Amino acid sequence: MEKIETYSFRVEPFHVDFTGHLFLGVLGNHLLNAAGHHSHNRGWGIDHLNQAHYTWVLSRLSIELTEMPAQYEHVEVETWVESVMKLFTERNFLIRNADDGRIYGYARSIWAMIDTATRQPSDLLALKGGDILNYVLTSEEKPCPIAKHGRVRLSPAAQQLATIDTHYSDVDINGHINSVKYIEHILDLFPRQTHEQHRIRRFEIAYKAEAFLGEPLTFISEPSAELLPDGEAASTQIEIRKNVGLADKPAGESIVTAHVFWA
Amino acid sequence: MEKIETYSFRVEPFHVDFTGHLFLGVLGNHLLNAAGHHSHNRGWGIDHLNQAHYTWVLSRLSIELTEMPAQYEHVEVETWVESVMKLFTERNFLIRNADDGRIYGYARSIWAMIDTATRQPSDLLALKGGDILNYVLTSEEKPCPIAKHGRVRLSPAAQQLATIDTHYSDVDINGHINSVKYIEHILDLFPRQTHEQHRIRRFEIAYKAEAFLGEPLTFISEPSAELLPDGEAASTQIEIRKNVGLADKPAGESIVTAHVFWA
Repeated sequence: MEKIETYSFRVEPFHVDFTGHLFLGVLGNHLLNAAGHHSHNRGWGIDHLNQAHYTWVLSRLSIELTEMPAQYEHVEVETWVESVMKLFTERNFLIRNADDGRIYGYARSIWAMIDTATRQPSDLLALKGGDILNYVLTSEEKPCPIAKHGRVRLSPAAQQLATIDTHYSDVDINGHINSVKYIEHILDLFPRQTHEQHRIRRFEIAYKAEAFLGEPLTFISEPSAELLPDGEAASTQIEIRKNVGLADKPAGESIVTAHVFWA
Repeated sequence: MEKIETYSFRVEPFHVDFTGHLFLGVLGNHLLNAAGHHSHNRGWGIDHLNQAHYTWVLSRLSIELTEMPAQYEHVEVETWVESVMKLFTERNFLIRNADDGRIYGYARSIWAMIDTATRQPSDLLALKGGDILNYVLTSEEKPCPIAKHGRVRLSPAAQQLATIDTHYSDVDINGHINSVKYIEHILDLFPRQTHEQHRIRRFEIAYKAEAFLGEPLTFISEPSAELLPDGEAASTQIEIRKNVGLADKPAGESIVTAHVFWA
């Protein structure tokens, strides 16, 4: 079995923003689909694993782009596994134009395998006799030339921006707020002008805990001191907390952190 | 050229709700994609028309389902034109399982062609020498066995449910609130319990005017007197108004009406 899976899609009209470029959340969705097909075709899909009481959990995703695909473009996503540790595996992505081969960018992700009964991470190397190691392509064999995931460190100066309720459309089959919806909600924090005058150069997100339908989400944000030529922050760190303001635990619980870098 | 276009998709994991069934908004998106491919392949696509300063505008969409496609199912959408009048055309859809052929349901839609310079509807029969008539399949030739679009009539007893701000992710390439996002926001009005205990049997939506990024949307709702066996309303009429509460025009402007029928 090939170690690389190629997944193709067309940028559909309802999947582009007001600049005519693919929504980052939709790109994230396509990357997760590519990952799903890669795993499925190698006997490691959620459909196989659920029967064995295991499921993949996305822990981190970092996407770095020199260009965002535009409406009607045909896009190919290559995905492969860069490394496997006991409790985590690194999966990378290459995103290119299917017609002329130009590269839009790359992405990195980190996944854990959870035992659905105990909610504890499982030993990836022990499952299926270490079969997962058959699919590894090291960084020498298949480079992914973008930085690894960074850390978000909010200072006391970080500002609480918004609190939103969560609804039916926010949750996935497990009743958890959908990974892609967090990306949408984060990008919705920025005003029209930011999206008009800048594009997302790099986006990092770390999923730390689950939120459920109806739990309110609070967005805390800290723009970088570094500025772009027009005076906007070069990047913004974001933390999402749930159930902020309850009497017994006023700070709530941190569930997602993200870092948006603008060009 | 065949009068029917068939468009296929797989129900992806991030496109299903907490019951494991396709989100209605995502189904709507697939129907619009099917319509886009049908028009494009017959020289009537937005990509051709924009160059000639015309664009399609969706006026009404009604979807009626005996079953909603579930995760990983392969779905085929057939779409065809049932009739063409001077200012409107009726386009229908059949939605079926690609593997066993069982029919999930049907949809009806009404479209106008707008001159992008004047924003006025154009005479469909005059464009391209009446070429659109070559693609009509009458209801005798290809039946669409669901009712035509109904009318929403709110009484003075209708209740204002919620007002939401609109953000970056809500708008399409024209800067208008995206047709599919209205469907999401409408279904987000209903509590978890309604979605848990009932499925959408029929959904009607009429797009009457545009809203733009940043314009607040107010949702007004009126449940039917007719009840389901568990006491929930059999259907709910909804109206979306924009810019409600401004001093010079407190009632705002009606932009969308919808009617959700539960089973």
